[in-house]
Amino acid sequence: MATLGAQKKHKVTVVGSGNWGTTMSKLVAENVKANPQLFEETVQMWVYEEEVTIPKDSRHYDAGSELSTKPQKLSELFNKIHENVKYLPNITVPSNVVANPDVVDSCRDSTILIFVLPHQFIPRVCDQLAGKIVPYARAICCTKGIDVSEKGVRLMSEAIGMRLNIYCGALSGANIASEIAQEKYSETTVAYDPPPMDSRAPTPSGSPNASQVDLISPSKPVPGARSARLQALPNDYPALSHANIRKLFHRPYFHVRIVDDVAGVSLGGALKNIIALGAGFVDGLGWGDNAKAAVMRVGILEMVKFGKNYFPDSSKSTTFTEESCGVADVVTSCMGGRNFRCAKMAIERGKTVFEIEQEVLNGQKLQGTSTAYEVNEFLKQQGQEADFPLFTAVYKILEGKAKPEDIPELIEPRT
Amino acid sequence: MATLGAQKKHKVTVVGSGNWGTTMSKLVAENVKANPQLFEETVQMWVYEEEVTIPKDSRHYDAGSELSTKPQKLSELFNKIHENVKYLPNITVPSNVVANPDVVDSCRDSTILIFVLPHQFIPRVCDQLAGKIVPYARAICCTKGIDVSEKGVRLMSEAIGMRLNIYCGALSGANIASEIAQEKYSETTVAYDPPPMDSRAPTPSGSPNASQVDLISPSKPVPGARSARLQALPNDYPALSHANIRKLFHRPYFHVRIVDDVAGVSLGGALKNIIALGAGFVDGLGWGDNAKAAVMRVGILEMVKFGKNYFPDSSKSTTFTEESCGVADVVTSCMGGRNFRCAKMAIERGKTVFEIEQEVLNGQKLQGTSTAYEVNEFLKQQGQEADFPLFTAVYKILEGKAKPEDIPELIEPRT
Repeated sequence: MATLGAQKKHKVTVVGSGNWGTTMSKLVAENVKANPQLFEETVQMWVYEEEVTIPKDSRHYDAGSELSTKPQKLSELFNKIHENVKYLPNITVPSNVVANPDVVDSCRDSTILIFVLPHQFIPRVCDQLAGKIVPYARAICCTKGIDVSEKGVRLMSEAIGMRLNIYCGALSGANIASEIAQEKYSETTVAYDPPPMDSRAPTPSGSPNASQVDLISPSKPVPGARSARLQALPNDYPALSHANIRKLFHRPYFHVRIVDDVAGVSLGGALKNIIALGAGFVDGLGWGDNAKAAVMRVGILEMVKFGKNYFPDSSKSTTFTEESCGVADVVTSCMGGRNFRCAKMAIERGKTVFEIEQEVLNGQKLQGTSTAYEVNEFLKQQGQEADFPLFTAVYKILEGKAKPEDIPELIEPRT
Repeated sequence: MATLGAQKKHKVTVVGSGNWGTTMSKLVAENVKANPQLFEETVQMWVYEEEVTIPKDSRHYDAGSELSTKPQKLSELFNKIHENVKYLPNITVPSNVVANPDVVDSCRDSTILIFVLPHQFIPRVCDQLAGKIVPYARAICCTKGIDVSEKGVRLMSEAIGMRLNIYCGALSGANIASEIAQEKYSETTVAYDPPPMDSRAPTPSGSPNASQVDLISPSKPVPGARSARLQALPNDYPALSHANIRKLFHRPYFHVRIVDDVAGVSLGGALKNIIALGAGFVDGLGWGDNAKAAVMRVGILEMVKFGKNYFPDSSKSTTFTEESCGVADVVTSCMGGRNFRCAKMAIERGKTVFEIEQEVLNGQKLQGTSTAYEVNEFLKQQGQEADFPLFTAVYKILEGKAKPEDIPELIEPRT
């Protein structure tokens, strides 16, 4: 799409600096340097400030230096050594990434906000940002998970979009952060499909003829901010077309496919964790690869059905069966992901998954357990438990109401 | 479907007695016993006769007994101890399986022939059987692989059907034989969709009104015997409906889904081996699970495209993306299958896959290498190499014309 006449460039902020956030900053920073006509060179990375000490096995550790032995602020240390010693050790991040502990300042004037926060921090951080970002900014949510309440299922991208009144897409795929940080080959799926936007709204840049050239599929419903008017990007910015969004994320080692289906991409990233628990259960029984593959297959079909039933206007079955955010992410999660490993360990040690969480995760929680409970509560309300036999079986096993050995019978279609 | 009035029962022969053939005999034998109204109790198993000695670690070995120390005929030993000590040790097969070294005799009067032979034996064995089986017999091919020649791609089921002039369906799935033999949970896909058959043809049973009740989808083309007239099953046999075919294969530990798509099921079983080689290559480079999942995802899409392009009337994309014979078989093959392991080993040891075949397979050949070559030859003739970048990349790597490191670039869609 035409970017002729564009005088401004997009400023990019990565909101989050954990393992995945730092990896995302690294690859986005490489791309903004490679595309100086589209993006400002500096990438802001919001850091939740904490004191860190350089670990003794770090390449930056020097016993004789005060820098190594004293606790320092994570953001300051990062800006000195261009490495996140705590969450992504031994990976150099390009020096055009600037760590910023002030979330509002880090997002000021940014037109592209990439959210890579733990699930539970999203509402609070969005509330801090609301009203303080440019009104035509666009967000991409890289956080996996969904929020299920009595009212229904809300995607993370919707939660961000509604709180900030901006359009929010999603990125999800078979993406183990540490592998991508090491530039090992990987794929991902980006869902980006902004609805028609109000071009009459005044914009801070004073451009009255805000352009609509970044509209991809005007007939689609509006994820993210259903009730509010979204503001179009002023036309002195390069269009945020699929091609330009791709330039922001695609690397030779990180292959991006762009789709329109935000719901499908988001659901894939959340629901695969339930499947991974199921796969871990049968693997823990020593049932082998056939059984694991069967659980994965049934799980992918339940993902498809979940999307069709509850996001009928947007979710497409091909997103689950053909994209990295679907089948490939299920595969990766069921080969060695954390949910898979903990579920397997639980069966092998004769413990509950919750006991394993406490023993091996240092108080952290698995995404899959909360998603399994939330999804079950929702399915119960809908009277649809029986239509999702694997999701329901995983919930029942977590609850102690079924045994892993029951899985084949529980997921066998009634004939 | 109605089986009222049926006086005869189906006689079942398993043609083959390797690892998978013996496993198939075991599960089919369990099912014929459970369904005495449909099937004769005895299951014939054709054994390619050879002399075997009971291994010293076998539970049947007794140093003091002549039975243990002298070589014996495999069929005779099997019928004594109900175990295939050579190809499926330590698994007891029900005593209603009778090993028979005479292939013609083993199939005499059988209405259901289950082929579980190595690929290369199929033509010869079918030629021995031609004209000596009941003309309305039905076959199910459990052998994976396809035959590619200048004329096109021929499925194993087609090869059997044409040589015997009977209808042949297919069974394929994420099925590691040894796991199924141990009754570990597994799924499979059976494709069974006989075309309209000529009910006027005389049948040996003398039934002039041979029934057509086992026709599933009369509008479908005729796989297996395109040019010849097929004979309908006489109506004194129980119909071979999907429900009854399912009763022959389904076990509590072996879940069967029945589809119409013989081409899709057969292609899945063949093409997955090319994908497994690709997954092995990237895993051998130490690229991790993201990369492996990406190769698998791209491979599944190439399967879908292959079916659509070359079997447009029959093959369905859902067979690959939703059934055990597609996505699940790819998963299992890429987790630990032989093609995967040998390709991985080749890269790790800096050798060719052919050198690894010689070193570790005792002269046996991988299915994936020959399929990769055959498919490439066919794609070249069609001018379609570029449309199947993963299949082509695997071929090129086998040929030494590309490196595993090139895979990401080779499979990246041209934009």
